[in-house]
Amino acid sequence: MAKSAYEYVKQFELADKLLPGCWIVVRVDGKGFTRFCEDHGFEKPNDERALALMDDAALAVMAAFPDVRLAFGESDEYSFVLAPSSKLYGRRSSKLVSLITSCFTGSYIRRWPERLPGTPLRSTPLFDGRAVCYPTLKILRDYLAWRQVDTHINNLYNTCFWALVKAGSSQTAAHERLKGTLSSHKNEMLFSEFGINYNHVPERFRKGSTLVRQLKRIKVERPDGTEGARERWETAVLHCDIIGDAFWRDNPHLTED
Amino acid sequence: MAKSAYEYVKQFELADKLLPGCWIVVRVDGKGFTRFCEDHGFEKPNDERALALMDDAALAVMAAFPDVRLAFGESDEYSFVLAPSSKLYGRRSSKLVSLITSCFTGSYIRRWPERLPGTPLRSTPLFDGRAVCYPTLKILRDYLAWRQVDTHINNLYNTCFWALVKAGSSQTAAHERLKGTLSSHKNEMLFSEFGINYNHVPERFRKGSTLVRQLKRIKVERPDGTEGARERWETAVLHCDIIGDAFWRDNPHLTED
Amino acid sequence: MAKSAYEYVKQFELADKLLPGCWIVVRVDGKGFTRFCEDHGFEKPNDERALALMDDAALAVMAAFPDVRLAFGESDEYSFVLAPSSKLYGRRSSKLVSLITSCFTGSYIRRWPERLPGTPLRSTPLFDGRAVCYPTLKILRDYLAWRQVDTHINNLYNTCFWALVKAGSSQTAAHERLKGTLSSHKNEMLFSEFGINYNHVPERFRKGSTLVRQLKRIKVERPDGTEGARERWETAVLHCDIIGDAFWRDNPHLTED
Amino acid sequence: MAKSAYEYVKQFELADKLLPGCWIVVRVDGKGFTRFCEDHGFEKPNDERALALMDDAALAVMAAFPDVRLAFGESDEYSFVLAPSSKLYGRRSSKLVSLITSCFTGSYIRRWPERLPGTPLRSTPLFDGRAVCYPTLKILRDYLAWRQVDTHINNLYNTCFWALVKAGSSQTAAHERLKGTLSSHKNEMLFSEFGINYNHVPERFRKGSTLVRQLKRIKVERPDGTEGARERWETAVLHCDIIGDAFWRDNPHLTED
Repeated sequence: MAKSAYEYVKQFELADKLLPGCWIVVRVDGKGFTRFCEDHGFEKPNDERALALMDDAALAVMAAFPDVRLAFGESDEYSFVLAPSSKLYGRRSSKLVSLITSCFTGSYIRRWPERLPGTPLRSTPLFDGRAVCYPTLKILRDYLAWRQVDTHINNLYNTCFWALVKAGSSQTAAHERLKGTLSSHKNEMLFSEFGINYNHVPERFRKGSTLVRQLKRIKVERPDGTEGARERWETAVLHCDIIGDAFWRDNPHLTED
Repeated sequence: MAKSAYEYVKQFELADKLLPGCWIVVRVDGKGFTRFCEDHGFEKPNDERALALMDDAALAVMAAFPDVRLAFGESDEYSFVLAPSSKLYGRRSSKLVSLITSCFTGSYIRRWPERLPGTPLRSTPLFDGRAVCYPTLKILRDYLAWRQVDTHINNLYNTCFWALVKAGSSQTAAHERLKGTLSSHKNEMLFSEFGINYNHVPERFRKGSTLVRQLKRIKVERPDGTEGARERWETAVLHCDIIGDAFWRDNPHLTED
Repeated sequence: MAKSAYEYVKQFELADKLLPGCWIVVRVDGKGFTRFCEDHGFEKPNDERALALMDDAALAVMAAFPDVRLAFGESDEYSFVLAPSSKLYGRRSSKLVSLITSCFTGSYIRRWPERLPGTPLRSTPLFDGRAVCYPTLKILRDYLAWRQVDTHINNLYNTCFWALVKAGSSQTAAHERLKGTLSSHKNEMLFSEFGINYNHVPERFRKGSTLVRQLKRIKVERPDGTEGARERWETAVLHCDIIGDAFWRDNPHLTED
Repeated sequence: MAKSAYEYVKQFELADKLLPGCWIVVRVDGKGFTRFCEDHGFEKPNDERALALMDDAALAVMAAFPDVRLAFGESDEYSFVLAPSSKLYGRRSSKLVSLITSCFTGSYIRRWPERLPGTPLRSTPLFDGRAVCYPTLKILRDYLAWRQVDTHINNLYNTCFWALVKAGSSQTAAHERLKGTLSSHKNEMLFSEFGINYNHVPERFRKGSTLVRQLKRIKVERPDGTEGARERWETAVLHCDIIGDAFWRDNPHLTED
């Protein structure tokens, strides 16, 4: 049983290193979540518990992989951003993708009972993952803008759609009614027909979740009993605009080398 | 908020199709399982409950992905084999790797309470994944032989090691004693010092687990009350030799086009 | 001028190793050869001098790279086959593709005056190259069959087309007349209208060129003046069928490990 | 002879698109040029005719591929730079590498008689090629600096080495003498022993060749006989520093989007 006679098979494993010097985005996406949401009675158009659970899973990824600098999530997807200088797992694509997807999936399941108590998990939620390189900060920001604009477009559509359905429309009729409408029409419809001011819809739904490490000042008791302070990195869950410059100006550490 | 202005970022996603006509092996591997085993008090050298849990997770993968023809597992790793003709997810490497790793991780966690009742899960088990192409059946069989020989080598070593430790040796002394010993020496040591006939060690520990779909004859009651039979594919968990020809002769469907 | 400060840029060169255990085909293709043929007054439908020049260039590639086992050429393209066991340049795709393309281009230009004396080279002939892996002999043979069938189809079409044009038809009318015709129609047209028996068209035009190393018996004079023989590998240029089994049976060394 | 039965082999050709948004460098390198130089009696340490021939070949590449913005050459290598926005051949690596290598090789051979009249070409010069992506201008400039520093280091060494050899030293002794010497020592040796002021060595040898497209003002005669001017892009061959900012400031079009 000579081990060596078979070890040649290791050569078939080809290198899959991601280009150095680029931002890496690993995005995980729910597989078959339309069905998964129905099976578990998620609220429409947004289930706050389920979104908070996605955030929990993403927080677990950030805790496990300090190289993840930033994460952005919406609906059943989450994007994790690694810096151009990251050398995590030699930048091997399958290592990064599989470990982050594994961590996300596992954390989603483990936190489920806290976020959806009373709703047993009937099937295993699956996520796929992929890694994409973005050569410059500008393109990375365009990627994130693409996802946040998507959040907005989908949420506005879904808010209208489910308002119509809850008001008695069939799903087919609701889709038909919304086909080709502009954002302004949808805003108007929400307001005039359903009394919903879209701008008052929770920011979490309209802007998704942005996870960013921030330096927090923490009060501590000194040995002599007096009160002092120290700083600690904590990951904040924000629901804010990340398209404009303000967010990036406020978080300069995100774009440092 | 023009969506189109940002959509160009989609082009940065590069193709990662695996070569057609090759066997695909997706292998998942536990990350940091030495620590994970300690934290959860796994029995040494083998924890039957934990191995059965690995098998459960692999069975869930085979149920979710009918293109997986065969799986082989040992210790904290599992290899899943797809046929050369498989077109699953267009043979995209990151799709296959991430979904199988996600399914494996999720199933491992969900089945944990059944296999290790009374042992709460203290941390999220992580698995990495990778996909490797093997051009011919011969090389695929060499790959599987490589893993099964590895199972044997590791198990023989670990059986000796833990026998020594349980008998009072320090871990350092046990490693020292085993350094450079041949298989025959280890077999002899087990028998003469600990009364263990290595060939009587359970096959699961010596040969790992092989999951294979088999056509089973199932009794059914016909509408008229008489008894009939029909056939159904079921996945069997075997602990047998897969290096020799017998296994492949007995399962000809594994190697069909 | 510290060299080391800049050497980090070497890391950006990513691995491009071709999967071991597969047949490698490097195919070079003329770029813009329609124009190149016109500019140099190549005969239609086939210019025997130009085809012989392609063969010369391919012979030079086989002389320079002993790992090339077989080559097949037609029109302005040539395919070079390396064995699954070849380790040439660590199977790096860009090395193999660029060196073979460089050697082919250079040899084509250097041999030009011998094959087309009196026709000065007016522009630099360009060839692109690519490497493709084929996992099994069956698929490799299907690849070669694909190219040889292509040779036949194009040659039959072109033979008809230029017969029509030489007989006074416009190129547009000739294309129009041939559109959608079956092979049998074209054979019939050639015979009845132009007195050409397609099977008597030179094999070089109908079957392309196959370059294969063959062991040749060579007469030598021994030191004592008597005549002896020794064997030597020589590359033969054949114009034969490579789709059927006969060619492969006659050249068993092509498919050895 | 159904063509379609074989066409499936086309699927084995995998995508090799280079990451968008990155600078692409295609570098060609002479293969076995030490031997090639000897065989053709190139002058040592630098053969001006041979270097000018390299420049000619690079100029031909720039003429054939307008997407090449800049080229840098030294010794037997040349780097061709394509802009991040280039879509040439869909950024397919093997297309770009093979065509540029083919054009370079072919042009080198065609121009040979002009640059080395009286020296017949005894063997086919071969070049390999590779493509590398650089995500930012800073890294691209570091790449070019790496090559230009290399030019300097090699040239200083070779100038000393051949001065020693021409003065009667054996090659082994010359290497031994230079081992571990600093640049300052080599400069000093050249000056004190051989009367060579290294700074007066031609810039071509010390700085390599940089090819850049520049807008030239050209005098034209107007139809009415008066003299006018128009502008035309011409490729200049420079031997200047490209590490500092001056070159990039003077050629702002190089770094435009």
